[in-house]
Amino acid sequence: MNEATDSIGRYHFVVEPFHEDFTGHVSWNMLGTRLLQCASQHAAEFGYGSVMAEQEACIWVLSRLSIEMNRRPATHQDYCVETWVAGIQRQFTDRYYRIVGADGTVYGSASSVWALIGRESRRPISLEQLQQKHPSMALLKVNRPDVAIPHPARIRGRATEPCRRITALCSDIDINGHVNSIRYIDHVLDLFSFEKRCEQEVRRIDMTYSNEAFCHQELDLYLTTEETGCLYVVEIKHTDGKPVCKARIEFVPAAE
Amino acid sequence: MNEATDSIGRYHFVVEPFHEDFTGHVSWNMLGTRLLQCASQHAAEFGYGSVMAEQEACIWVLSRLSIEMNRRPATHQDYCVETWVAGIQRQFTDRYYRIVGADGTVYGSASSVWALIGRESRRPISLEQLQQKHPSMALLKVNRPDVAIPHPARIRGRATEPCRRITALCSDIDINGHVNSIRYIDHVLDLFSFEKRCEQEVRRIDMTYSNEAFCHQELDLYLTTEETGCLYVVEIKHTDGKPVCKARIEFVPAAE
Repeated sequence: MNEATDSIGRYHFVVEPFHEDFTGHVSWNMLGTRLLQCASQHAAEFGYGSVMAEQEACIWVLSRLSIEMNRRPATHQDYCVETWVAGIQRQFTDRYYRIVGADGTVYGSASSVWALIGRESRRPISLEQLQQKHPSMALLKVNRPDVAIPHPARIRGRATEPCRRITALCSDIDINGHVNSIRYIDHVLDLFSFEKRCEQEVRRIDMTYSNEAFCHQELDLYLTTEETGCLYVVEIKHTDGKPVCKARIEFVPAAE
Repeated sequence: MNEATDSIGRYHFVVEPFHEDFTGHVSWNMLGTRLLQCASQHAAEFGYGSVMAEQEACIWVLSRLSIEMNRRPATHQDYCVETWVAGIQRQFTDRYYRIVGADGTVYGSASSVWALIGRESRRPISLEQLQQKHPSMALLKVNRPDVAIPHPARIRGRATEPCRRITALCSDIDINGHVNSIRYIDHVLDLFSFEKRCEQEVRRIDMTYSNEAFCHQELDLYLTTEETGCLYVVEIKHTDGKPVCKARIEFVPAAE
């Protein structure tokens, strides 16, 4: 299948200066943001755009995100995000990604689960019903690229005391009026020291999102060490204990 | 003068989804980052690139930045950053900007003062001497675009007690190993409430930078209200009182 006949979206980027982190590779924030942008663009291009215009105003919210990177492209390197829809179940849709370089390097892959919710009601909209009404939304005829997709990990923390309390501030909030899904990744990775981040590379991040958080709300971060030096779970909760999101972070020794 | 014969750099962007803030306009962070990117790109294209390769490894550091916006472009709107060098004095160079839309809308303008420092020594390199040795660096033959450039404001705070203490974390640090110049703008604007930021638009930001800050350092923010509701000064200092940067923030009522 070629670009014209399949349902895979392909979006080209370059790691621009100041979009890298201190290691000189595209920041996890910018990489995650690119995945969000591609999802939104692909959904608009492949059928959802016109369908959604008929609905009440609605927004896509991220329910799960798993990113596994062999390495991240460095400043001035280009990369292509390929994305496709793998399935629809009730209000959820599975979306997969492959991140490849112009020379064919497979940088990594990702999987995500999205829900469509009403902007006002904040309640989910059934994608299965939408699909039945609008067969043009059939995005599923895809020759899946040859890449291992990270199967979302089960994330369970055991920490009973928060290791950090943060307050959600304006720079955390996106156009949907809540703390940005990707910004949580910053807050999670900010629990680790500069020295650790220099010595070890984050290889994989799994996120599950359960409740929104809004500006000026305090959030508690709970850190569980699963395997010292390489595997951690971070739970973010409202101060009353209501879960916001959970992360599983896997480190490997840095390449050089 | 046209694009081929003058020394003005022109760089085209679009406000991509998730590069806006919660108001739906390009975030101050992304706008500031674009100015940094354009400075770096323009300096490389117009003579500094090859000259700098002969030097010890060196980096551009921002000494002052003033941005004045009539309004910020909204999601999916395009804009062009025009930038040119207005003068060189000792280790400093003045760089100006105009931000315009495809339809000629002048969104705003900016001025900045940069110094070139050694990456290891952290000491300034004389641009005047470089200029004499390398006449190809003559960037000054510019028909200045017709725009009022914000003259850097004098910034003096009076607060004696910090209103917030933050710790610089990994997500604040850029490839130069210090807290990113633009990230300070986030920290400054984060002092204001979500409600204020919805009701009032930041019209102008002036920044002066005096010392670097590094990961895990604690920083104190001192807020002085110059005119209630519209004019503020924020000083950021190391905990021993050593100044890091100062900001002057001017608000106006939001357009709609």
